[in-house]
Amino acid sequence: MQSMKLLVDKIKNEGRTIGNDIVKVDGFINHQMDIAFMEELGREFRRRFDEIEVDLILTVEASGIAIACTTAPSFGYAPVVFAKKTAPNTLTEDYYSAEARSFTKGIISNLRVAKKFIEPDNKVLIIDDFLAHGESARALAQIVEKAGAEVMGIGVVIEKMFQGGGKQLRDMGYHVESLAMIEKIENGEIAFV
Amino acid sequence: MQSMKLLVDKIKNEGRTIGNDIVKVDGFINHQMDIAFMEELGREFRRRFDEIEVDLILTVEASGIAIACTTAPSFGYAPVVFAKKTAPNTLTEDYYSAEARSFTKGIISNLRVAKKFIEPDNKVLIIDDFLAHGESARALAQIVEKAGAEVMGIGVVIEKMFQGGGKQLRDMGYHVESLAMIEKIENGEIAFV
Repeated sequence: MQSMKLLVDKIKNEGRTIGNDIVKVDGFINHQMDIAFMEELGREFRRRFDEIEVDLILTVEASGIAIACTTAPSFGYAPVVFAKKTAPNTLTEDYYSAEARSFTKGIISNLRVAKKFIEPDNKVLIIDDFLAHGESARALAQIVEKAGAEVMGIGVVIEKMFQGGGKQLRDMGYHVESLAMIEKIENGEIAFV
Repeated sequence: MQSMKLLVDKIKNEGRTIGNDIVKVDGFINHQMDIAFMEELGREFRRRFDEIEVDLILTVEASGIAIACTTAPSFGYAPVVFAKKTAPNTLTEDYYSAEARSFTKGIISNLRVAKKFIEPDNKVLIIDDFLAHGESARALAQIVEKAGAEVMGIGVVIEKMFQGGGKQLRDMGYHVESLAMIEKIENGEIAFV
C-alpha cells in the first residue's frame, strides 16, 4: 500500500494540521472543493479496486457526497446513495440504520438509508473522505449487511492510521484502500506511508 | 421560462408527492443520486446562464453538494464551496454567516462559509436542489454580499413556485433559473410550467 503522490503533495501544500489529530483539507475536499482533482481521485479508486464489480456507491452526508459523486463516473456511473444523519420529513419509508460517532463533532449520529435503495444483490463500494476511528465506514458496512448486500470495498481519501479504524476494518476482512495514509502528525509535520 | 422536459419526465416517472407541499426526488437527486443525469442538469444550467462569468459555485450542505459538483465541469471546473450548517472543530477561522429556515426539517440553521473562500472579486453562481420559500438561496446570497462579491445567478433544480421564494428573489433583482417549475401540487398531481 502506498499513498498517491499527487494527493500527498496537495495535502503538504494546501493542508493544515490542528494538534496531532486533525488534518484540514478544507481547501480542496470538504469545504471548498476542487472537482477536477476529485475526479482524479475517483480514477485512482478505480485503479486500486480494479477487479471488483460495483453497482452501488454508498457514502454519508455531508463531506462524503462530493468524493462519491466524482468517483461514480469511474465505476460506470453506478448510482450513489448517501446515508442521512437526521431524519427529514421526506424520509417516510422504512430505512436501515446504524450508529456512528463523529470524531470531529463529538456526537453520535444514527446513519439512515431508505431500504428501497439497497437490494440484497447489490455489490457496494463504500466511499468517504476520511477514515479515522472507522465509525462511519463501519456503520455503512453494517447497513449494507443488514440489507443482505455485499461490501466489495471501502475507499477513503485520507486514512489517519494512528486512530486505528483502518486496521480494525482490514482485520474484519474488508478490502480498504486509502489514497493517502498518515502514520502520524507531530509538531505540524505529517508523516505519510 | 420553461421547465426542462427531461427533468419533468423524470419527476413524473420517479418522483412522489407528500400532501400538497412536498415533492420527493430521493431516487435521483437527494438520497440516491443519478450522476449522469445530474451532469446533464449541470449542462442545462450552463445553457441557461450562457453569458455570465462564474469563478465560484456556492451551495449548502447536504443535498446541494451533488448538483453543485456535477455543475462545476460545465463552468470550467470553477471551485465549489458548500456552506456548513454546523460549526465543526475544523472550522477555526473567521466565517461569514446568515440564517436560513429549513422548510423540510422545521429548524433554523446558521449557514457558514470560511472567509478565505470568498474573495471580493468573485463572481458567484449559487446552486441548490430546491427553491421553496427561498431561505437557503437568500442566506447564500447574503453571504456572497457580505464578502463584497457578486451573485451572478441562482440556479436550482426544482422550484416550488407556490411557496414564493423564487418570486421574491427575482423581485430583488437576482437572475434565477429553475430547471423544473412547479405551479402547484394537488391530489398527488404536479402541475409544471
